[in-house]
Amino acid sequence: MRSVVISLGGSIISMEKLNLELMKSVSSTLQKINTYDKYGIVVGGGRLARTYISDLKAYNVNDNILDEIGINATRINALALTTFFDDVNSKIPTTINDAAEMIHNYRYVIMGGTEPGHTTDTVSTLFAERIGAKILINATSVDGVYSEDPRKFKNAKKFDKISYDDAIKISVNNSIGAGTNVFMDITSLTIAKRAGIKIFVINGMDMDEYINILNYERCNGTVIS
Amino acid sequence: MRSVVISLGGSIISMEKLNLELMKSVSSTLQKINTYDKYGIVVGGGRLARTYISDLKAYNVNDNILDEIGINATRINALALTTFFDDVNSKIPTTINDAAEMIHNYRYVIMGGTEPGHTTDTVSTLFAERIGAKILINATSVDGVYSEDPRKFKNAKKFDKISYDDAIKISVNNSIGAGTNVFMDITSLTIAKRAGIKIFVINGMDMDEYINILNYERCNGTVIS
Amino acid sequence: MRSVVISLGGSIISMEKLNLELMKSVSSTLQKINTYDKYGIVVGGGRLARTYISDLKAYNVNDNILDEIGINATRINALALTTFFDDVNSKIPTTINDAAEMIHNYRYVIMGGTEPGHTTDTVSTLFAERIGAKILINATSVDGVYSEDPRKFKNAKKFDKISYDDAIKISVNNSIGAGTNVFMDITSLTIAKRAGIKIFVINGMDMDEYINILNYERCNGTVIS
Amino acid sequence: MRSVVISLGGSIISMEKLNLELMKSVSSTLQKINTYDKYGIVVGGGRLARTYISDLKAYNVNDNILDEIGINATRINALALTTFFDDVNSKIPTTINDAAEMIHNYRYVIMGGTEPGHTTDTVSTLFAERIGAKILINATSVDGVYSEDPRKFKNAKKFDKISYDDAIKISVNNSIGAGTNVFMDITSLTIAKRAGIKIFVINGMDMDEYINILNYERCNGTVIS
Amino acid sequence: MRSVVISLGGSIISMEKLNLELMKSVSSTLQKINTYDKYGIVVGGGRLARTYISDLKAYNVNDNILDEIGINATRINALALTTFFDDVNSKIPTTINDAAEMIHNYRYVIMGGTEPGHTTDTVSTLFAERIGAKILINATSVDGVYSEDPRKFKNAKKFDKISYDDAIKISVNNSIGAGTNVFMDITSLTIAKRAGIKIFVINGMDMDEYINILNYERCNGTVIS
Amino acid sequence: MRSVVISLGGSIISMEKLNLELMKSVSSTLQKINTYDKYGIVVGGGRLARTYISDLKAYNVNDNILDEIGINATRINALALTTFFDDVNSKIPTTINDAAEMIHNYRYVIMGGTEPGHTTDTVSTLFAERIGAKILINATSVDGVYSEDPRKFKNAKKFDKISYDDAIKISVNNSIGAGTNVFMDITSLTIAKRAGIKIFVINGMDMDEYINILNYERCNGTVIS
Repeated sequence: MRSVVISLGGSIISMEKLNLELMKSVSSTLQKINTYDKYGIVVGGGRLARTYISDLKAYNVNDNILDEIGINATRINALALTTFFDDVNSKIPTTINDAAEMIHNYRYVIMGGTEPGHTTDTVSTLFAERIGAKILINATSVDGVYSEDPRKFKNAKKFDKISYDDAIKISVNNSIGAGTNVFMDITSLTIAKRAGIKIFVINGMDMDEYINILNYERCNGTVIS
Repeated sequence: MRSVVISLGGSIISMEKLNLELMKSVSSTLQKINTYDKYGIVVGGGRLARTYISDLKAYNVNDNILDEIGINATRINALALTTFFDDVNSKIPTTINDAAEMIHNYRYVIMGGTEPGHTTDTVSTLFAERIGAKILINATSVDGVYSEDPRKFKNAKKFDKISYDDAIKISVNNSIGAGTNVFMDITSLTIAKRAGIKIFVINGMDMDEYINILNYERCNGTVIS
Repeated sequence: MRSVVISLGGSIISMEKLNLELMKSVSSTLQKINTYDKYGIVVGGGRLARTYISDLKAYNVNDNILDEIGINATRINALALTTFFDDVNSKIPTTINDAAEMIHNYRYVIMGGTEPGHTTDTVSTLFAERIGAKILINATSVDGVYSEDPRKFKNAKKFDKISYDDAIKISVNNSIGAGTNVFMDITSLTIAKRAGIKIFVINGMDMDEYINILNYERCNGTVIS
Repeated sequence: MRSVVISLGGSIISMEKLNLELMKSVSSTLQKINTYDKYGIVVGGGRLARTYISDLKAYNVNDNILDEIGINATRINALALTTFFDDVNSKIPTTINDAAEMIHNYRYVIMGGTEPGHTTDTVSTLFAERIGAKILINATSVDGVYSEDPRKFKNAKKFDKISYDDAIKISVNNSIGAGTNVFMDITSLTIAKRAGIKIFVINGMDMDEYINILNYERCNGTVIS
Repeated sequence: MRSVVISLGGSIISMEKLNLELMKSVSSTLQKINTYDKYGIVVGGGRLARTYISDLKAYNVNDNILDEIGINATRINALALTTFFDDVNSKIPTTINDAAEMIHNYRYVIMGGTEPGHTTDTVSTLFAERIGAKILINATSVDGVYSEDPRKFKNAKKFDKISYDDAIKISVNNSIGAGTNVFMDITSLTIAKRAGIKIFVINGMDMDEYINILNYERCNGTVIS
Repeated sequence: MRSVVISLGGSIISMEKLNLELMKSVSSTLQKINTYDKYGIVVGGGRLARTYISDLKAYNVNDNILDEIGINATRINALALTTFFDDVNSKIPTTINDAAEMIHNYRYVIMGGTEPGHTTDTVSTLFAERIGAKILINATSVDGVYSEDPRKFKNAKKFDKISYDDAIKISVNNSIGAGTNVFMDITSLTIAKRAGIKIFVINGMDMDEYINILNYERCNGTVIS
């Protein structure tokens, strides 16, 4: 039995409003692939979370509580996603520990964030590491890892594959500089590296990508390994 | 030491977006009233919750899970409200039991819903009953209890005061008929009756109403007793 | 796989003492019916709970705490009932959420009340709604729904079937008047209506009733639908 | 600030029915003693618990689950007792850890049993040890420790004081023999010994005993030290 | 399906350092025995726990907190042991209740201590009683029950089998005297007796002992029954 | 009222054995400073944790579970530290949320790690951010931040003060290169920056450092601001 973790980025799960069409597509895509895989799915926050948070920021609210609010929003999104699956958890786990316990009982375990300081990408890699998943699908609104932010630089080059260390370098440079090309944070990449988790950064709206990864371990996005 | 519970209706707490100005006003109003009161505040869901829920309804999602999602939204609103107070809980209690435990340690205890089947009005009366509060402020977008829905009937008459039984009758008639004049649900009114909790239904945007109730136990809305 | 919820009323589960013979009969009846159904069973409080509560009432104890005590009594009854089943939960869930999580792992999930303000009938309908059960057996000491209280009115007429709205009307009239014919509370009936749960109100001591409902969806009591 | 733990035996707290008069007396007695003491109170199960348990025993129910049921009964009794106090916990703690956390916030912390294999006497000594209480009042239906069971042997001699080791010997002899003179179990006595907790075994119906112990550390019962 | 509980004593699980070789051997031994048994495994504290505790004792730390620290150490050992098994819990249960719930979902449930006042031997018998296990393997550093401490008395005689009452007598005499021959505490033996659990006290380093017990219910150590 | 968080590094809290002398010194130093500060103290894992973990690594155990074991070890250390304080929590909180709740009730709240992927330094900054603490004392075995690892480079220069960005750069270079000069991880520094928390990196064995920071906000180590 293989385990796979999917990080469903907030940028695709919730835009103007909750992207229920996408949720439905992901659900039916995963159910079509007739394997015995177990799936951990970590859902991001999206626009609604950001709206709440940016409104509150104007009132000088503590960032840590804003993070908590953001995490609560991811859990609502996670709860919404569960309604498209059978053999799935009813309660949204709030720790990796609880999620690991649940994956024993369900084919799909869906969760959101855990605590301030951890992005949902980091939660995804921690979840993958804990249950021994060697495949992590990072489903985002950009179709892979680029040398520079593709929304800003026309000549940005997309990588087919890239090493953990090179990915970390790009992430670091953008984190500490003024860069905007942060496809995944450093902590999540570091954990993926130590656990040997193959990351597929893909356009999460393209269902063929999921199918190709799950059947053949290849994609049109970027593989980090 | 007196205890007071305030039900901050979703209709005023969250409209186009989270009504942070109102949260700030309520906070500074309560802090201006220099008493030793303890406050339980129960926050509703509002428009954002309803958006999520109505979107999901289109996908035939289980009503019970929609209720859970709505409850999660009220807790996010409650968490946001805590940031405007000192001497307030950091975690949002999920049961009356936990809230009762917390009121011993804080001057303000803020919470949202508890479980499907209970409106936040019901949570408010249960909270009031548990901590022995004899005053419940029901802060809504309508400025009292009317004989008929004032948004539909020009001649609807506002009550200055009304008995529990009459309030229950109006609520029942609207619940089981096609009425839209449901200012509070039957369960919450029944609990208020058995516990002898005086309910002040007021326009929650009007800060003078809070001040008059807390200082003189009177208001321009409707008193149910 | 079909899901069924049974509300075992306090009036039959616990009289002079805990009705263990009934528990045993229900257990062996359900096990005889060789289906793949999953069962949620919600147990009421009964006489022992009422004794405690009425004794405490004489000391002017807060009704909300009396409700808590009553809920604790239902959980003891639930724990007792688990001992007559295999493939059943060991811990009594205290929320619908936890119960829903458990029904994935066990064939029988047995629970009592959840929080003040909710009868065990309401818990039953919430549980049914959450797990998608379309059949609710309301096992009581009266053998159906009557036009009037059959213990008082000789000519009271038993309904074979009745609509949700008519059932709600009878319940309302008795709740707010001096009536004593409250077979189920309004909240539970409202939830059953919105979720389309067929309710069978039966004499819970008659094992044939359970068998007929589970095999043929008919009974000698009253069907609310 | 001194800490005191009281073990309110089931034999006095709950006889034919819950002994609410005793609860009220203990409450007003403790409140009359105008000290700054903190009180841990551990409540036993009593007759109602035993009735349930003996009924279930006839159905060959697992002793461990019977213990759980008994523990649940002690918690209901504890909840009932809280209603006679102010500055007291609202939720009944289920571990010594939780109780220790609560004693920081309340003057009175009331609890029942914790887990199978521990009597409420053992819970009392563990609680006392944890919070550094050096006085344990063991309020029972017998007025002290006797050389033999005073209900059977007319000439049984009551000890004014007795050493831990002698108390343990009497307890052991009765535990492993056919004796019925088990005033406290071995585990509780062993913990009291290692922690140097002075135990006052008294007739729990006699309010003067509580007053004398709390004011002068003496009683008409037996002191184990 | 048969249930078996194993008490892995601290004296063999953790000496100079954590005895991972033993953990590995026990794991592969149990997996070789091709039965459908379910296993509860309770792990002791060992030398590391004792080091922490004896260091803290020098600072007059509360024994109850030392017990808590010891219990935490047993849980770390339990967590370490889980890594040698599949179909095993991810979280270490902290109560018998939780462990009982888990045994439904896993073939192996591994835990440490529960609360101060209960040895891991007592936890083992409580766990066995709760899940109806009739076999308890007590894996220690001594190869059975002796008439006297075999490390001190050359002529100490090992029992092949011994009754519960005789075992309790030996345990009592050593507990209250200066004896050092306490192979199991009185509480654990008392529970084993009431539940009719057959205890096999064996040299836990000898894998053949486990095999013989699980296949033929016999051993070279001592059987208490 | 001022809030201060102290990160007691594993390198000083636990060496050959638990450094109880240091615990005692820190406790009496903090109690001597007669202010109304509230303290959060986060305790690291130290040598004992590392021994367990390195032993298990030899058996190819999942890094995530090793992290869990390390976190459990920090909690044992935290529990040990609580015994040197009054007005301190009894249970070790496992989330920032719980710790924030506790700081309302105690002068000192002591905790260890929270979840895999977060160092105790990160937990310290999250805790500080949540409770609005503007001072974080990072008590380590090195007496400040150096340009290079002072244990390897004789000419390494110690900074008196350094900006957040420069500190992050040093940390990054060492994290992704082969460097060993990682005084604090990137996540913790990033949170300190966004929350404006002044970090004092000091030799944690030198009690004068604590006194100078708490009285005058200066030290002989390095200030990051």
